[in-house]
Amino acid sequence: MTDLEKHQRMANAVRFLAIDAVEKAKSGHPGLPMGAADIATVLFTEFLKFDPTAPNWPDRDRFVLSAGHGSMLLYSLLYLLGYEDFTLDELKNFRQLGARTAGHPEFGHGAGIETTTGPLGQGLGNAVGMAIAERLQEQRFGKQIVDHFTYVLAGDGCLMEGVSQEALSLAGHLKLNKLIVIWDDNGISIDGSVDITDSTDQVARFAASGWNTIAVDGHDPSAISTAIRQAQSSDRPTLIAAKTTIGFGAPTKSGTAKVHGAPLGADEIAATREALNWPHEPFEIPSDVLDAWRIAGLRSASAHKDWEKRFSETDSELKAEFERRLRGDLPAEFENATLDYKKKLAEEQPTMATRKASEAVLGVINGVVPETIGGSADLTGSNNTKTSQTAPITPTDFSGRYIHWGIREHAMAAGLNGMALHGGLIPYSGGFLIFSDYCRPSLRLAALMKQRVIHVMTHDSIGLGEDGPTHQPVEHFAALRAIPDLQLFRPADVTETLECWQLALNAKQTPSILALTRQNLASQRKTFEQDNLCAKGAYVLIDSEDDPQVTLFASGSEVEIATSAHAQLAEAGISARVVSVPCFELFEAQSDDYKAAVVGNSPIRIAVEAGIRMGWDRFIGTDGTFIGMSGFGASGPYKALYEHFGITADAVVAAAKSKLADNAA
Amino acid sequence: MTDLEKHQRMANAVRFLAIDAVEKAKSGHPGLPMGAADIATVLFTEFLKFDPTAPNWPDRDRFVLSAGHGSMLLYSLLYLLGYEDFTLDELKNFRQLGARTAGHPEFGHGAGIETTTGPLGQGLGNAVGMAIAERLQEQRFGKQIVDHFTYVLAGDGCLMEGVSQEALSLAGHLKLNKLIVIWDDNGISIDGSVDITDSTDQVARFAASGWNTIAVDGHDPSAISTAIRQAQSSDRPTLIAAKTTIGFGAPTKSGTAKVHGAPLGADEIAATREALNWPHEPFEIPSDVLDAWRIAGLRSASAHKDWEKRFSETDSELKAEFERRLRGDLPAEFENATLDYKKKLAEEQPTMATRKASEAVLGVINGVVPETIGGSADLTGSNNTKTSQTAPITPTDFSGRYIHWGIREHAMAAGLNGMALHGGLIPYSGGFLIFSDYCRPSLRLAALMKQRVIHVMTHDSIGLGEDGPTHQPVEHFAALRAIPDLQLFRPADVTETLECWQLALNAKQTPSILALTRQNLASQRKTFEQDNLCAKGAYVLIDSEDDPQVTLFASGSEVEIATSAHAQLAEAGISARVVSVPCFELFEAQSDDYKAAVVGNSPIRIAVEAGIRMGWDRFIGTDGTFIGMSGFGASGPYKALYEHFGITADAVVAAAKSKLADNAA
Repeated sequence: MTDLEKHQRMANAVRFLAIDAVEKAKSGHPGLPMGAADIATVLFTEFLKFDPTAPNWPDRDRFVLSAGHGSMLLYSLLYLLGYEDFTLDELKNFRQLGARTAGHPEFGHGAGIETTTGPLGQGLGNAVGMAIAERLQEQRFGKQIVDHFTYVLAGDGCLMEGVSQEALSLAGHLKLNKLIVIWDDNGISIDGSVDITDSTDQVARFAASGWNTIAVDGHDPSAISTAIRQAQSSDRPTLIAAKTTIGFGAPTKSGTAKVHGAPLGADEIAATREALNWPHEPFEIPSDVLDAWRIAGLRSASAHKDWEKRFSETDSELKAEFERRLRGDLPAEFENATLDYKKKLAEEQPTMATRKASEAVLGVINGVVPETIGGSADLTGSNNTKTSQTAPITPTDFSGRYIHWGIREHAMAAGLNGMALHGGLIPYSGGFLIFSDYCRPSLRLAALMKQRVIHVMTHDSIGLGEDGPTHQPVEHFAALRAIPDLQLFRPADVTETLECWQLALNAKQTPSILALTRQNLASQRKTFEQDNLCAKGAYVLIDSEDDPQVTLFASGSEVEIATSAHAQLAEAGISARVVSVPCFELFEAQSDDYKAAVVGNSPIRIAVEAGIRMGWDRFIGTDGTFIGMSGFGASGPYKALYEHFGITADAVVAAAKSKLADNAA
Repeated sequence: MTDLEKHQRMANAVRFLAIDAVEKAKSGHPGLPMGAADIATVLFTEFLKFDPTAPNWPDRDRFVLSAGHGSMLLYSLLYLLGYEDFTLDELKNFRQLGARTAGHPEFGHGAGIETTTGPLGQGLGNAVGMAIAERLQEQRFGKQIVDHFTYVLAGDGCLMEGVSQEALSLAGHLKLNKLIVIWDDNGISIDGSVDITDSTDQVARFAASGWNTIAVDGHDPSAISTAIRQAQSSDRPTLIAAKTTIGFGAPTKSGTAKVHGAPLGADEIAATREALNWPHEPFEIPSDVLDAWRIAGLRSASAHKDWEKRFSETDSELKAEFERRLRGDLPAEFENATLDYKKKLAEEQPTMATRKASEAVLGVINGVVPETIGGSADLTGSNNTKTSQTAPITPTDFSGRYIHWGIREHAMAAGLNGMALHGGLIPYSGGFLIFSDYCRPSLRLAALMKQRVIHVMTHDSIGLGEDGPTHQPVEHFAALRAIPDLQLFRPADVTETLECWQLALNAKQTPSILALTRQNLASQRKTFEQDNLCAKGAYVLIDSEDDPQVTLFASGSEVEIATSAHAQLAEAGISARVVSVPCFELFEAQSDDYKAAVVGNSPIRIAVEAGIRMGWDRFIGTDGTFIGMSGFGASGPYKALYEHFGITADAVVAAAKSKLADNAA
């Protein structure tokens, strides 16, 4: 058997596992695995550095299947290479409830899946983050410990999504030369030929952002091999445009949209077996082919062994630090440093915007947590995400700890996911809260993948003032609280800002958003408390000695309004308590007793938030009073806006009194 | 005075109005208006076709300030040209509550603002929609009535946002030669020089997608003029890369980020007046300059007059049709055609997925409403948005009524906004509901701008099955209901689908989303009703004769579960009613009496929806029972998923019985 024949048999094994699994599931996407099997076979058997027996080896190459609908390509490879999470039975259970082999690759379902893909373009964004992480880690720990490539297989859809432009232009700018993107250029999307909707010269497009580009026949293993080798030695990121035939081998359906997202059907499968000379039963891999794949699986074993040796010889302190960061544990100094600062805040009682408070807190955090990597989507001075410790990285210097992401919120959030997935870093971003909409698909995936990424989102309400309704979040608190397993924090003052940062950093499996103000806020917490009061999501900020007639609930900047109203009510002889609600998600996780105690049973319950009501019924009931927004904002100085929209202490007091009168009547 | 001197004085008028307004507001962005004043002066005085005395003249050229933070550029131009909505007083009230001159241009605040911009890249997407609309309208009504250009002024930020790639690649593909984008290439963004974050050769990037490209000095009026003239005769869309100095004229701050988004300050303003030889008081425009601008404002008067003449000579039926479509009125046939079909559905009681029902309804609608323009983001066969009447448009043929948007949800939604703003068309799109996240910024702007755009979003829950959690909306109903002034419809069967389509089409000032199922649903409406029952947002689908013990609320595919549960409860002798809730937004708009009657006062209230609980407390109270999702979905056949997540009639019945037992205890 020639090398080419051997290659083809190995690639056909990938093809038929995909064909058979999709057919059995009666659902799935055979076209991509069949078309990209040659590329993947070359990449995984000749180049990719990995160890199926130690799939999380930190210096492995990363492989991202950005075209996640081709999941059977990945599952087939992982099975053939001997990854234990992906048995033949798992492949036979493709797309069934409880299987590791979900419709799209799900991070956490099995080792070997580096990220969750399916929403197109996300994998490309993740990979840019991974490649940045590699450079950052290499800079810190040296090439003997960190030196790997990040490979992406992307489809036409990935390149059409806007996030791809943000990701590729940043990668080109940063000269991420260890990022290699292979474009499965099959010219077919669901609606038909790509040329019914796009005429872009993708090679020229990537070149315009400074990429090395290579065009090859994606079914010619030696051409693919040459291209990858050339890419590995480039000083820039590389696009390999690999011309392929979708559904390669299927006699009547290949090269058409029919093979993209539906089972081939029995007749076409029989004809494909014939055409590709694969006379085996479904899911049957001849032993010579399986052996060849399993041997390929051991290809990097010596590289792994060498790495382990180098790592064991590393300075023990450096080694311990590398491992700590990989585990995601915070440094021992973190707790005391933040507590000391909290004491200081309790003494000083500063009035400041929470975005400024966040900057001050970050100054403390970045001083003791060296693995934080900050950044902003071109709003550094507004988000206050840069501290004295975080010099910006540049294409030639990754010793810094700050990323100017540019006006690229989506690639930033996808990139943060990639950095967190890579491991060893705690990335945080900066942006305006309104632009959470621009990166929402990546925020959702951070939650689905349980990644510790932290987004600082400032200018969190009409409180931003003059920029007007296009920039004023109204529905965003609700819309972000709606995403499962994501923590939206809205701290009320400096101390809560510190506590929320503590919680975000300690949440090893949860993404967090800190919604912060542009406008100044008075300190609400008057005494030092060792405990993190924000940890329970909501807590009694001002209690009442007797049975209170009124309970006021608020978050963020509106806590100040609630406490002012409380003072006015007290003057009027009306007993009230104030509950601060920095995080709905954490509150829901508390015991029923705690939740009932915080909600209380005042006859009058009022919530104040400069957003919509949605979600607040949880605290005030459907007959409670909500003081907030019911539509879009407006352009004007922020104090005028608060008056205009009636979000004031006076309005709260008036509502309380009116309800009291109603109840008395 | 030379022509150049005259030009410079006119441009300086724009500059100083911007400088003075920002200074007075103590807030805003002077840098762009100062840098782009030369470009704008050439464009508005030599090329743009408009009539300040008839600002909504349908064949005017469209000008989109995609870099919306430079709003004072637009306001200054509109004042100088004599648009009556933009008086000097309005300019003096820049960024104040109630002024037309909001921080960013707000559509509807005054004639002359073609679209709301500020969130970067959106204007570019809108403009692509406008240019498509122009071609479509020209095809239908002829060049004598429709023949205008669409101009965009875009900044670095617009080009960095991903949506720009989606928009420009589509425009290049469609050869929208009457689209002319002028890039204000000032090399500065908020964080500093653009080259700290981007190295893209934008000219090469646009060329890669088939654009005509021209690079000019943005301060050389004759070069700008030559470029625009060349662009007007291109057979492709044109990018004019105009190199400018941000804050042109400010001696110490020009060319730096300092002038981007903050007032210049008194000293710098004084020095700028000196440097530009503009010894006038704030807001004072010398009469020769104002006269020159006002004369420029009359430049297209004869073109407008000629158009009116041509239009008056147009065939009266064609004229009436053009005007009807512009007003946004539906054809007279619409109501009867849809009612006839509704009768047919009541007779046939078909079981089908609501996406299929939507296709059938669209077949009726597209037959009688010729101004609908359909499309899909590469999911035509899945969204069922194409009907027999809607052939796809191609670069050379705009007689069709269907747009293959490609895998570009964001540009699609921004494009729909632009088409609706252009007027004369009712655009609808197709996509998966999960990907509403990819286009959320544009959905929000549709609501803020009160545009009738309709998004068909299918595969609306775990009911899509095997594609798994990356594709299964869970939080999306809540997140979309959260957006003010946007209608999310979730019809329960064929008849509700028809009614929701009727409502969406009749909502001339409101965008709509139709969330539709992949899976089959039985008909729930058993009799023909002339009235549109969905119009009130929620209604009693199955009533109870006595005081019901239980009320079941549900939307979309879960109405079937509720009615099954109702049947089981009836068998068990438990009286219950079923309320269908197709649209929260419309329900909230009803009278308090109606709402109270629909919610009712059953001791037991249960809501069923295959999404999160958020928002449902409105119907069931905080102590009501919610049967739905509390986290992400899973990959598997949909029936297995409904069982797995406990969203079944049995679960509803069990919950009702358990509550009854509790209450009895």
